[in-house]
Amino acid sequence: MRLRFTKMHGLGNDFIVIDGISQRIRLSEDKIRRLADRRFGVGCDQILLVEVPQNPDVDFRYRIYNADGSEVENCGNGARCFARFVIERKLTGKRDIVVETANGIMTLHTLDNGDVRVNMGEPRLTPSEIPFTADQQAVTYALPLSSTTLEISAVSMGNPHAVALVDDVNTAPVEQWGPEVESHPLFPQRVNAGFMQIVSRQEINLRVYERGSGETLACGTGACAAVVAGRLRNLLDSVVKVNLPGGSLTIEWQGEGQTVLMSGPATHVFHGQVKI
Amino acid sequence: MRLRFTKMHGLGNDFIVIDGISQRIRLSEDKIRRLADRRFGVGCDQILLVEVPQNPDVDFRYRIYNADGSEVENCGNGARCFARFVIERKLTGKRDIVVETANGIMTLHTLDNGDVRVNMGEPRLTPSEIPFTADQQAVTYALPLSSTTLEISAVSMGNPHAVALVDDVNTAPVEQWGPEVESHPLFPQRVNAGFMQIVSRQEINLRVYERGSGETLACGTGACAAVVAGRLRNLLDSVVKVNLPGGSLTIEWQGEGQTVLMSGPATHVFHGQVKI
Repeated sequence: MRLRFTKMHGLGNDFIVIDGISQRIRLSEDKIRRLADRRFGVGCDQILLVEVPQNPDVDFRYRIYNADGSEVENCGNGARCFARFVIERKLTGKRDIVVETANGIMTLHTLDNGDVRVNMGEPRLTPSEIPFTADQQAVTYALPLSSTTLEISAVSMGNPHAVALVDDVNTAPVEQWGPEVESHPLFPQRVNAGFMQIVSRQEINLRVYERGSGETLACGTGACAAVVAGRLRNLLDSVVKVNLPGGSLTIEWQGEGQTVLMSGPATHVFHGQVKI
Repeated sequence: MRLRFTKMHGLGNDFIVIDGISQRIRLSEDKIRRLADRRFGVGCDQILLVEVPQNPDVDFRYRIYNADGSEVENCGNGARCFARFVIERKLTGKRDIVVETANGIMTLHTLDNGDVRVNMGEPRLTPSEIPFTADQQAVTYALPLSSTTLEISAVSMGNPHAVALVDDVNTAPVEQWGPEVESHPLFPQRVNAGFMQIVSRQEINLRVYERGSGETLACGTGACAAVVAGRLRNLLDSVVKVNLPGGSLTIEWQGEGQTVLMSGPATHVFHGQVKI
């Protein structure tokens, strides 16, 4: 069959977005792998399939698949691309879109400048919930590496994050520290490693070494975890611009007991038709 | 403007192919780089722009640009994709297509199975024409590396190639030997390094470490150079199937003074429209 699709990216994290409402689609693992291949297929990090919801209280449902065919839990960059897609394709006229994903129901809000705001949920700081091995909860922990000891914060945004301060993200040895933090024995399910430079109380620069993927252009949950860590250390205000290698996000967190709001762009690249 | 394009590949070497006859296109270096980016653009190794020829004796003209915006000389995988493109788009009904490129004029022939045959020209074996530093022309030369000495043939197919025999391409240390051969002082303009396993007199397995690119899925000139080297060593017949990581080519060479014919597939992946 001939499949219509849209290629989009959120800060360089790229998606094949498929309208599964006007097209009847069955995506096998094999088809996903072939579509996601960057030379023999269309190429992407993830495939996002928009569907009619089964729950009558929500506007849409979508699924996200990794390039290897496995289904992914929520993803902030994907949520923003989904919202821009249904607006640009005129599948909705709403500014607040209620959507069902594998993670549950969430509301996406489109801003005047076209950016999309996603509620990323409440951060978890209790060590056992991250999971992280510590006698008791603290703002920072000492994490011994082979050549140094990092002072990290430990935060879960649904996935575990270790966040360290650095003087300059451009010169920080992320290639060396990242893998050591990722597989540190104190994080039994491994961890995403964030390296944060404080520019001001309203701005940080951030590089994230993602669990299982290595350094990426823009990790949405990593940006949230970094702002939570900086707020807990009293280095940041409640609204912070986060500069990542792929572009910038705005993260808002009022403090403990509150959810984290992430705003950022989603970019249409091209439309295509492919035989699958 | 909105640009229509077709994504194609020849054994995994992938191209954005643009009909510059029905669309007026001006591709700046900046636009080429953005189109070729695999996350922020469409993504490809090269962009192929089909144009109306200035020479009345030829059917088409095309240009090939690298992802960095520079213009490339001829490329066998690109020539096959060009031919399939003008046939599938019904821009020609001919089986023999005469085309003008930066390298001159050539004729492409489409086979009954849809494969395309390209005349890759005559191999050059004189050391100074490759260029390679040697007292006199020979079938093989000793090339000392840090850990071993390789017995190589030196062949130019418009670009320089060193071809070594290996027992098994899967276990050959291409990652180690490739860069050492590529920048060996006996090749003053560096060299493409081919590692060939003889399967039979009609079939070889080949891996090529390309000058400036590292190992690639399918190097057309490398396949030609390997068959020439194998023929000169009297290990191969005149028609040989060459198995590369991205797929197979058929190479035909009758011997010195003759041109090399390369036949292989070109695959349409998808159509798209992008704003540039």
